[in-house]
Amino acid sequence: MRDFLPAEKARRERVLAVIRERYRAHGFDEIETPVMEEYARLHAGIGGDNEKLAYNVLRRGLDAEAIRAAADDPTALTDLGLRYDLTVPLARFYATNRGQLPAVFRAVQIAPVWRAERPQKGRYRQFVQCDIDIIGDPTPRAEAELVVATLDTLDALGLEGGSVRINDRRLLDWMLDSFGFGVDERPGVLITIDKLDKLGPEGVVAELRDRGADTAAVDAFESFLRRPTTLEHHPFGDRQIRKALPDGAPDDVVAELVGIGQAVAAARAAEPAALGDPGDIPVVFDPFLVRGMGYYTGTIFELAHPSVEYSLGGGGRYDGMIGRFLGQDAPAVGFSIGFERIVDLVAERTDAAAPAVVLVHDRDVPEGELLAHKAALVRQGSRVRLEQRTKNLKALLERAAADGYTAFATVGPGAAAEAIEVKPLG
Amino acid sequence: MRDFLPAEKARRERVLAVIRERYRAHGFDEIETPVMEEYARLHAGIGGDNEKLAYNVLRRGLDAEAIRAAADDPTALTDLGLRYDLTVPLARFYATNRGQLPAVFRAVQIAPVWRAERPQKGRYRQFVQCDIDIIGDPTPRAEAELVVATLDTLDALGLEGGSVRINDRRLLDWMLDSFGFGVDERPGVLITIDKLDKLGPEGVVAELRDRGADTAAVDAFESFLRRPTTLEHHPFGDRQIRKALPDGAPDDVVAELVGIGQAVAAARAAEPAALGDPGDIPVVFDPFLVRGMGYYTGTIFELAHPSVEYSLGGGGRYDGMIGRFLGQDAPAVGFSIGFERIVDLVAERTDAAAPAVVLVHDRDVPEGELLAHKAALVRQGSRVRLEQRTKNLKALLERAAADGYTAFATVGPGAAAEAIEVKPLG
Repeated sequence: MRDFLPAEKARRERVLAVIRERYRAHGFDEIETPVMEEYARLHAGIGGDNEKLAYNVLRRGLDAEAIRAAADDPTALTDLGLRYDLTVPLARFYATNRGQLPAVFRAVQIAPVWRAERPQKGRYRQFVQCDIDIIGDPTPRAEAELVVATLDTLDALGLEGGSVRINDRRLLDWMLDSFGFGVDERPGVLITIDKLDKLGPEGVVAELRDRGADTAAVDAFESFLRRPTTLEHHPFGDRQIRKALPDGAPDDVVAELVGIGQAVAAARAAEPAALGDPGDIPVVFDPFLVRGMGYYTGTIFELAHPSVEYSLGGGGRYDGMIGRFLGQDAPAVGFSIGFERIVDLVAERTDAAAPAVVLVHDRDVPEGELLAHKAALVRQGSRVRLEQRTKNLKALLERAAADGYTAFATVGPGAAAEAIEVKPLG
Repeated sequence: MRDFLPAEKARRERVLAVIRERYRAHGFDEIETPVMEEYARLHAGIGGDNEKLAYNVLRRGLDAEAIRAAADDPTALTDLGLRYDLTVPLARFYATNRGQLPAVFRAVQIAPVWRAERPQKGRYRQFVQCDIDIIGDPTPRAEAELVVATLDTLDALGLEGGSVRINDRRLLDWMLDSFGFGVDERPGVLITIDKLDKLGPEGVVAELRDRGADTAAVDAFESFLRRPTTLEHHPFGDRQIRKALPDGAPDDVVAELVGIGQAVAAARAAEPAALGDPGDIPVVFDPFLVRGMGYYTGTIFELAHPSVEYSLGGGGRYDGMIGRFLGQDAPAVGFSIGFERIVDLVAERTDAAAPAVVLVHDRDVPEGELLAHKAALVRQGSRVRLEQRTKNLKALLERAAADGYTAFATVGPGAAAEAIEVKPLG
């Protein structure tokens, strides 16, 4: 867990403001839930491996007897926990507040989550997630809206050129079935396939054999992987999707993916005339994209950017999950961008529009005079910091410049407001 | 703990943005600390009664034996806790990061805190605090800067007319001493005096007698309370402060308070010429203002606004506290505004500058066309929500208007972008 010092905190808030504004423009409504949820809800199996990483809150009012009894059942020590993602809270929020929400609810959540990860570079125990979700729309229009809003937000942050890798859990399931993997072994097989980028085709095949997966199915998968084109990323469209899959892929799912890509391209084109131009589609089909969470039921996607090799976010459709809290089905699809990774990519910018003035004053300027001078500069639209003059004025001004101040003025006792001259720093 | 639905969340974010921008203009640097701090730090006696209300986090990896052993020492069950205020984290932050901060550090923190309060109206277990603090400035200029920045922020929120009740712990101590209360009984006497608004003078005197406070001192205090002018709020200035106190108040403390009031008045005056005009000083001396926390050492203040009887915030000087974490003294003074109370006072505003359009579409508009229409409106600066046309268009539009949308357009399949007419809602 980290402290954020002024420069970094200011950068985070600038990025947050852009994300907030862009998602709002795309019709997403921001909501907020408490950081603590009930223990049972956080440990209902939806959170996958993250459930084990949850911070649990000590139940209040435990006496010695209750503590002793909890030795056999440690869950009796806790009744609340810190959320480890924003999806479980969203499902709970929707079930609680559905009557006050529109039929198609577009939600944005920008908030910290907590996981007791082993400390390692780039992993934090408290970090901000930024999720958009559409609940109540079963059509692929929802996927397209999420992708367009996300790419537009990246653009607004100066990260143009983003694209989305896309796949569909139904295609994965169909493909595994066509190779001959049994229903029961498919979840394990997917975990291995998800390592394709890391292990390569041979490593994946070896791990599948180690796992004891059906031998004939692994053979079929291996020969498919050895097809010369299989591992390349194909430009987006019906023919390309089919070329990347075994023969006979289900028409309806392929058509949905093509529709999403074309809708994204139409929305992203500056001129509507470009609609359908396949060269402009910032969507890439990846038949081996898996995504870890067990709750996905349809499309899955990951956000890529040319400046980095890792994913900047991802999501998918999870039509079954809201129903577990709500008691009736509600289609849902979400896209989460990796706020911490994006903040690291967004370059420092000094906010040129708002001048920032260091007002260096002699020790003996009366407080009333000094604060009147400061107030006058604030009223003119400046950000103003008071600094008492030190022997080393140069060091003082350098320090202020490092903190983002762009100008300075000096003032002694009895100075007229008009006599104060603001000079640029550095 | 509460869910925030879209309209309320949007209002909170608008208020936060104004607070953030105003405090930044006044030279305060925003920082952020993790929501969890070490248990020992949260329970070092600084947090007063709030320590008892802390949510503690279950230590990870406890086995049955460790749990059984903890029956005799429940603190062994926990190593972290959720912060119950922003002052303890600030002191820890300053001790950790001092080398990277300016000599006079003006901090703003806007963040949630948690207290396991008994549920009651207007009290929440998770709520946002908004603190500004100045560390490293021992002069009353720091107090004046805090007050000016806070009143300016209230103005920017449309809450003009705020004022600050002010007192000084040194005056309280001197006054109790002059009545004859012993050093040991003074903390308890202050707790009772703090109830003056609620109990009235007679109730306070009765409680002091019940408490077993020194009889002669209570008599002296009672006869002082019965002076006809004592309970009135006096306009601010040296004479008025002295009239509200027993004779012989210490000159240096009174002069500091007068200086703070005059500096605030000078900064708040639109024209510097008004400097020193006592009629304009938004500061009121209150000899019986106590403030609950034990760590205050000098000035204490509370924020008042004519629209409400309760306080909107408060603070004071706590020169000894940072030193407990830092190992060397650092003067400090802080002002906390009650974000939850202020949000309730700020009227709903629709954001007239940014048009919000509901795009009502027929079911059969192709996704690509629809998303291109939406994108075109977003590019023009609108916030846009898609809604599929329902039989009851009127209800759909009313619902959207309630969510803050100000305009609508309808679109069927094959519509040209130019043909889409945006009409005002309602």
